[in-house]
Parts: sequence; C-alpha cells; structure tokens
Amino acid sequence: MHVMVLGGAGMIGRKLVERLAREPGVLGGSIERLTLVDAFQPPVPEALQSISTAMTADLSQNGVAEKVIALRPDIIFHLAAVVSGEAEADFDKGYSVNLDGSRALFEAIRQQGQNADYVPRVVFASSIAVFGTPFPEVIPGEFFTTPLTSYGTQKAIIELLLADYSRRGIFDGIGIRLPTICVRPGAPNKAASGFFSNILREPLVGKEAVLPVSENVRHWFASPRSAVNFFIHAATIDTAAVGPRRNLTMPGLSALVGEEIEALRRVAGDKAVALIKRETDPVIEKIVAGWPTQFDASRAEALGFQAEKDFDQILQAHIEDELGGRIA
Amino acid sequence: MHVMVLGGAGMIGRKLVERLAREPGVLGGSIERLTLVDAFQPPVPEALQSISTAMTADLSQNGVAEKVIALRPDIIFHLAAVVSGEAEADFDKGYSVNLDGSRALFEAIRQQGQNADYVPRVVFASSIAVFGTPFPEVIPGEFFTTPLTSYGTQKAIIELLLADYSRRGIFDGIGIRLPTICVRPGAPNKAASGFFSNILREPLVGKEAVLPVSENVRHWFASPRSAVNFFIHAATIDTAAVGPRRNLTMPGLSALVGEEIEALRRVAGDKAVALIKRETDPVIEKIVAGWPTQFDASRAEALGFQAEKDFDQILQAHIEDELGGRIA
Repeated sequence: MHVMVLGGAGMIGRKLVERLAREPGVLGGSIERLTLVDAFQPPVPEALQSISTAMTADLSQNGVAEKVIALRPDIIFHLAAVVSGEAEADFDKGYSVNLDGSRALFEAIRQQGQNADYVPRVVFASSIAVFGTPFPEVIPGEFFTTPLTSYGTQKAIIELLLADYSRRGIFDGIGIRLPTICVRPGAPNKAASGFFSNILREPLVGKEAVLPVSENVRHWFASPRSAVNFFIHAATIDTAAVGPRRNLTMPGLSALVGEEIEALRRVAGDKAVALIKRETDPVIEKIVAGWPTQFDASRAEALGFQAEKDFDQILQAHIEDELGGRIA
Repeated sequence: MHVMVLGGAGMIGRKLVERLAREPGVLGGSIERLTLVDAFQPPVPEALQSISTAMTADLSQNGVAEKVIALRPDIIFHLAAVVSGEAEADFDKGYSVNLDGSRALFEAIRQQGQNADYVPRVVFASSIAVFGTPFPEVIPGEFFTTPLTSYGTQKAIIELLLADYSRRGIFDGIGIRLPTICVRPGAPNKAASGFFSNILREPLVGKEAVLPVSENVRHWFASPRSAVNFFIHAATIDTAAVGPRRNLTMPGLSALVGEEIEALRRVAGDKAVALIKRETDPVIEKIVAGWPTQFDASRAEALGFQAEKDFDQILQAHIEDELGGRIA
C-alpha cells in the first residue's frame, strides 16, 4: 500500500512515521510507498528511506492537492494545520491552510475518483477545540460543536466535509479529536497548554518548570504514543461499524494537575517535584478555565480506541519513548 | 436603514418583503433603502417601489458579493440557497451556491469592514437539516449537527462561519433553523415534505390531496407567518443576550399528521377531510422516518422567538394570509 502523511514534519506526524518504520505491518499490509508532505521538510526514518518521498508543499496553493493525490495514496493521514494561536492571529492564513487546504485535498480526491476508481482512507486530525465553553462537567458524545476559536471552527468545518464526502463514497474518512498531548517532547513552548507537559518533562531531566495554575485544574490528556495508536487504529478500522457519524472524540485521561504531580513524585521523587515552581498566571488561568475537562468517549472506546488510564502510564510512555527507559 | 434580502424571490423572502411593505417600522427604524437579490428576478411590492432595487445575481460568482456589499446594507437577510434535493443531486452546484456563495458574502463584509467601519446584522436562514438521524425523541438544544445531506452539511458549515465571523466582530450574525413551513402556499410540489401542506391547502379550496404516510407521523412545523416573524425578531434582537452561540433552533409545533387533519375538520368540516386520499408511498415513508419530530427550542423561546401552539393557529394564519380570511 501507499501511505501519505500530510503534516509529516509535526510532532505527531513524525512519531506516526517512526512507528511505521518500527512496525511496517501495523496498517495491516506491507507499505510499498510512503509520501511525506509538510510545509517544512519532513524527516524520513532510515528504515523507510528506500520507499519514501518527502516534499515541502502547501495544500492550499493552486494545484498542490491535485499533484499529491495524483500519486493515489491508499491511506492519507491528514495532520497538516496551522496551530490554534496562529490561526487566531492570522485570519487569512488559518482559513487558507486549515480550511481551503483540506477542502482542496478532498476535492482532489473527488476529481481523482471521477477519472478512475479511487476511494482512499482519510484519517483527519481534528481537535477538542471544536467544542466551546460553557460545558457540562462531562461532555457527552452528542454535544454540539460551538468553537470559540477560528482554529476550532476550521476543524469543525472539515469534520462536516469529511462526513459528507464519506457519506457520498468519495473517500472513506475518519476524524479523530485528540486530547491534549502529554507529555509533549521537546523544549518548553509558549502555548498556554505547555505547562501540562513542562511540569513533568523538565523535572524528569533535572530542570525547573513553571506551574501557572492551581493543582485543582482538571484537563483531558493522552500520550503521544496513544495519539499515534489512534491514527493507526483509525486507518485500519472497519468504517461500516462507524456509520455516517465519522468524527470521534478520542478517549483520554481526565486528571487534575495535582494527579500529574503525584505521579511524578512516585516515579522521580520529591526532588523532582521540588523543581516545579508555582507562579500563578491569571491570563493562563483564564484561558485554561475555558477548556473542557472530561469527555464521554464511550463511542470511540466501543470502536477499539484506547488511551491511558492514569498519569503513571502517561509518564511511563514518556520515559520509554523519550528517555530510553531511564530517568536521571 | 438599508435592508438587503438575498433570496428575495423565494417564498419566505417574498413574504418577508411583503411584511416590510405592510409594516415599514417593524425593524425598529425607517427603511430608506431596500435591495433584493436572487438568482430569479425578485418581485418588489408597490409600497416599496421608490426605495427598492431588485437584481438577479449569484453570490458564488466572482465579484458579485463584493458588489452587493459595497452598497453597505445595515441588515442582510440571507435566504439564498439551492434547495436540499438539488444540492444532493448536483454536488458542485450545492457547494458552490450554498457554501461558496455564503462565504463570499461573509468575506465581502470583512473586506468592506477593513476599509471603513462596517458591522451589519446578518440573519441567516439555516435549517433543521443540520441534524441527522438517529435522534432522541426530543432533540436537545445542545445536540450535535451530523447532517445526512450535502444541503444540511452546507448549512451547518455556514453556521460555524457565521459564529466565528460574529465572534470576531466582522458582522453581527444570527442563524435561525426553520421548522418545516406549513401551510406552504402555491401549487403542490414534489418535495417529500410537500404532503404536510398539501393535505391542508388543497382541501381548503375544494381540491384533493394525497397523504402518503400514516396519521401517526410526527413532525415539526411553523407557519410562513411565524417564519417571517423569526427573521424580523432575529434582525432586531440584542445579540449581547445571544452570546457566541449564534445559531438557534426556532420554536415550532410538534404535531401528528392526524392532528393536522383534525384541525382541518374543525375549520372546514368532514367534506374537506374527505378530499384527503390515503395512498401510502414507502419511499416517502422512509424519507420522513429520518426527519426530526421535536426540538427543545427553549433557548430561542427565552430570546423571544415564538411559533404556533397548535394546528388551528397554523390553519388560521394560512386562511388569513392566503385566502383573505375566508374558506370555500
């Protein structure tokens, strides 16, 4: 099969590709060809060099979607997006990349299918940003999408398009709404959600991290490993069991910041916890207060999607996948 | 003020304009200018001739939205759409007119506002087609939009855009999801929902009508008069009270076909009811089984939107508005 990863240079995209390199049969068949596309040059794992093509491209540019779809990939992982903050700051860029780029992709598939039989699987990275406050304590599976950001709006629109194109048999799509990914690898970033990862990742390597909110903040998490599992499962699932409602809130762990910290203490001791500096930031507190804390993801669970059950598992995944199984 | 009606040649558009002609102060100020736009030449009522411009135009065509928005209307009623059956049969036309045309309109407003202060009220005719089966018996206000038609998909997408553009202060939008309009005036049409109106309108003037489903079918109704009231109210409401969730399911009457028939009997007697011919049509039965039967519209009601409470009121509105207050 021919696998295409759009957004292959991003954190999840890279981890997904690394997983395909480690476990080439994980999609249920052998991968004959891998195409990676991103606005930045996507890295290709050693093991897949001989079958891979990596290209920099922007799907929202004229003719680009047609060009990549002319390669007729069987499975398309679509993770390409401008992130939330940038889509909010730059109206035109957000709508262009996130909405027009995705629609161009879907249209290119439709045009390709009109010339010859072609119905690829499309796995789309959606987001819980499709939901907007006020929320019930546990957001039900049938809760409406009333996003409060342009990013969330763009994701919700693509979800609708994905469902309609799938209903019409143009492609076979699944949209997966990812929880906040934790522990996010790499350097601390300025995203408002960064601290959820920073307070674990940094102390594990002996560095300080700032906690800008109270320990009683509740949020919705999954590890990068689970996120990759979601994509793999979505690519291989029997969509007849999914039916026309193609967009699924992924399972996650609803946990308090305090639970993160206690898991860190169990794994790395009081000296690690002592590296967390409490510096309340009212701006971040306010942003975080608008985020969902828990979902009913029973539909996705019934379809076989699985996430971590506690923060010990999330920490364990990080230590295994990022720290070679050892902590300082 | 300058009022613009997009889709001014359609049934509701015409009735809205007629209402403005009869009650020129109903929008809370005097109308200095009225612009009617439609793919078909929209009629202009006598009383508004001197202040009106009627034009045929397609918003999805290059430059058209910019041209009409350059007129800087204060209130824009956006009812222009390709209907459900056509949007399903012609993928390109449905997405072009319903989605691209609306987005071009919204973008033209944004561009206009970048040159000079301009934040018009936009009232958008959405539809309960944004919902897709399976439903709970009463669809809650926070139920998700999982349309099963391209038309419903397009309406749901425009709802999302309308909320985001409003949140950003580009315009001040309200989307209203209309119930099935009954009694629909005019000749019987081939729409699957046509019988709901046919079985009342035709017998009232001594003509036969076909009932293709059982009397136990339940559906969600409002009169054309209520629909016009919804638009007027949405144009004048204080949107601060609406908040960021700008799309509202309008109130309606949840009633059985049998209740329609009994209301007809009370108004026009057994001889009218005898004109209803029962000819079960399994195709229509199946389509209708996928339609919603009742909504919790308490949010719209709390905001002052009102519909009929029984079929006697719906019949009365029809007799007054279409039959000059008298029946045969």
